[in-house]
Amino acid sequence: MSLIVMKFGGSSVGDAERMKRVAKRIVERKQAGHSCVVVVSAMGDTTDDLIDLSKQIYDGAPPAREMDMLLTTGEQVSVALLSMAIHNLGEQAVSYTGWQSGIYTEPVHSKARITDIQPHRVLKALEQGNVVIVAGFQGMTESGEITTLGRGGSDTTAVALAAAIKADLCEIYTDVDGIYSTDPRIVKVARKLNEISYDEMLELANLGAAVLHPRAVEYAKNYNVTLVVRSSFTYNEGTNVKEEAVMEQGIVVRGIAYDKNVARISILGVPEKPGQLAKVFIALAEEQIDVDIIVQSGVISGSADFSFTTTLADREKALTVIEKIRGDIGYREVTSEVNLVKVSIVGAGMVSTPGVAATMFKVISDLGISISLVSTSEIKMSCVVDNTNLTEVIRALHTAYGLDTTEHAFVGGPEDRR
Amino acid sequence: MSLIVMKFGGSSVGDAERMKRVAKRIVERKQAGHSCVVVVSAMGDTTDDLIDLSKQIYDGAPPAREMDMLLTTGEQVSVALLSMAIHNLGEQAVSYTGWQSGIYTEPVHSKARITDIQPHRVLKALEQGNVVIVAGFQGMTESGEITTLGRGGSDTTAVALAAAIKADLCEIYTDVDGIYSTDPRIVKVARKLNEISYDEMLELANLGAAVLHPRAVEYAKNYNVTLVVRSSFTYNEGTNVKEEAVMEQGIVVRGIAYDKNVARISILGVPEKPGQLAKVFIALAEEQIDVDIIVQSGVISGSADFSFTTTLADREKALTVIEKIRGDIGYREVTSEVNLVKVSIVGAGMVSTPGVAATMFKVISDLGISISLVSTSEIKMSCVVDNTNLTEVIRALHTAYGLDTTEHAFVGGPEDRR
Repeated sequence: MSLIVMKFGGSSVGDAERMKRVAKRIVERKQAGHSCVVVVSAMGDTTDDLIDLSKQIYDGAPPAREMDMLLTTGEQVSVALLSMAIHNLGEQAVSYTGWQSGIYTEPVHSKARITDIQPHRVLKALEQGNVVIVAGFQGMTESGEITTLGRGGSDTTAVALAAAIKADLCEIYTDVDGIYSTDPRIVKVARKLNEISYDEMLELANLGAAVLHPRAVEYAKNYNVTLVVRSSFTYNEGTNVKEEAVMEQGIVVRGIAYDKNVARISILGVPEKPGQLAKVFIALAEEQIDVDIIVQSGVISGSADFSFTTTLADREKALTVIEKIRGDIGYREVTSEVNLVKVSIVGAGMVSTPGVAATMFKVISDLGISISLVSTSEIKMSCVVDNTNLTEVIRALHTAYGLDTTEHAFVGGPEDRR
Repeated sequence: MSLIVMKFGGSSVGDAERMKRVAKRIVERKQAGHSCVVVVSAMGDTTDDLIDLSKQIYDGAPPAREMDMLLTTGEQVSVALLSMAIHNLGEQAVSYTGWQSGIYTEPVHSKARITDIQPHRVLKALEQGNVVIVAGFQGMTESGEITTLGRGGSDTTAVALAAAIKADLCEIYTDVDGIYSTDPRIVKVARKLNEISYDEMLELANLGAAVLHPRAVEYAKNYNVTLVVRSSFTYNEGTNVKEEAVMEQGIVVRGIAYDKNVARISILGVPEKPGQLAKVFIALAEEQIDVDIIVQSGVISGSADFSFTTTLADREKALTVIEKIRGDIGYREVTSEVNLVKVSIVGAGMVSTPGVAATMFKVISDLGISISLVSTSEIKMSCVVDNTNLTEVIRALHTAYGLDTTEHAFVGGPEDRR
């Protein structure tokens, strides 16, 4: 018998039928002797419908405080209905909003961070034998203002609550049945992982394997909460996310991620002077431009070339910024490139295994593809390449690192990442 | 410059356009120099939609606590959107739920009574120059449970809040432009009243002129809050509801109400013994049967006849109850009648004016209609008659009591009475 936090996203409770199925799932857990706290998101399209309503009322971006008042109703509807669905199966349940659950946040709207959880009501209701249903994505400031946690907020609620009540496990129910070695829609032989470390998960999540929000993973890492990512539609075993994740014999790469939203910008012939790089990236940061990989080659005869990647949407803005500081920096030329993809291999054991990088370069060059940028960290290596052969590249890497399996991936509908 | 509470019902904010019109109305008040607190109900069909959802989830009547969690989201959506709509017109506004407004209730779900209001947040926000938007129909218990006030709850919220913040006026915006001397859909020449007393309003409201919830009127009477009932669609003057309402010269009846949901049951030949009436009505009360008028004729040769009215829905149940206690009471016979209507004249001055009752009897008998039951109080007299000639009866009474006018009534869409 253990204390479990179960989190269900918006598409898992998208309509009355799904809501009832989720209730059944929870009641099974409860009747197996576990104490259950359930965190749930707004039903399916609720959030989008509320945003549409606000657009009919307000020209432009509505006041964030009022937007939080509006959107938090979505989860409140979910918790009330899910509690009813559990009652309907003959079990006791009680629903709480964020503020009722003692979830305190910074005084910031639309993307507040949790500052404290005072879970006495949740714990008392559990003691009384209830399934406790908590609204995800929301909290309250010290002064009683309703706030939201931003994207991935319900994941964060679940993990933070699991830490606060010292749960044995935090189960994230989603529309896939676990974390895969790569996107199973691209590589049919993608391997479902039994285990993955927090750091590996963070690298994969940031790179687009968006099953679990990075903030929630960070939170889990900080408080050492064991996560299980599993399907709300099947009873398949999920993937455990924890500090020490065991690697299978002979495998060094955990997974392969990719990101198509990438543009390369290169600044060539920058005269070597201290602080040149800083000037460029301060100017970009001031315009809120997202910069990912930064690479500088060596200095040749007093001048250097460097490159960085940004999102496709930010490319034009970045070029304008760089043009503005031309006089100050005194570079020779700027080039940029789109139609790229960043392919990354991730694995905690990579750093101690020779030849991992060489394999990646060889696989890509064997396909006749040239590499535009390379970046490496302790557990990740990324290559930015032309995106026309993405599928081929990922399949070849997947095979080369010994990740192919015969298992069949389960992929459900699109999950709401709120 | 005064402090005004304005209350808007569900149909006044039924869609984005209506919401914007209400916002404009509020901003006009604000810009005329008034401080405004606005109480608003859930938008149009929201409550019904939420109830439908709950029916898809729960077989039967869902747990009342969870129903309150569900339904209170309706008003929260309204307050957030209305606040946005006011911001959109360039004025400051802030929205609050029931609990944020300091509205405390009994620990009862679906029909809680307000026990206390601690309006410091509302007052502070007013001081800061905000229009304050408060969710109607909802409150919080001492232990932080969300409750609802039941039907007419938003009216009650508005009046109670007006009392707590010592507002100069509580304006109830609705889909008609005031209280009429009778139903203007029946009598085209119905007179809009400038003033009406709390007691008269209570009698009219209970009888079906359901513009303002009786509980709210009682509250207003207890705390001496001046109410104004007016249209949210026109700028016509409304009706003032207050303690001392002035009567026009020569008029003694304020208004005429009717109720078609009425069945008569008569118990004939009841042997005269103490406690016979009590036995009957205790038995009916135990089955939650609603009893309105009770009439007993005099005792003739040791036995009495008495009659009462109930709703059409409760008639069968009442007859069953009476059959069960036949042996105990020892009555001779039971009769019942449907297709009736209760017509009532209401006026605070009736008690001191001779001939008011005689006029009512004469008007009805001149139409060739026989009277089934009569009941009188200090400010009201009701006759239960055959319902086939309802329109004729009301028109004739309206003329006889000098109430006809040439003014044109404004009647909007159906207002949500929540």
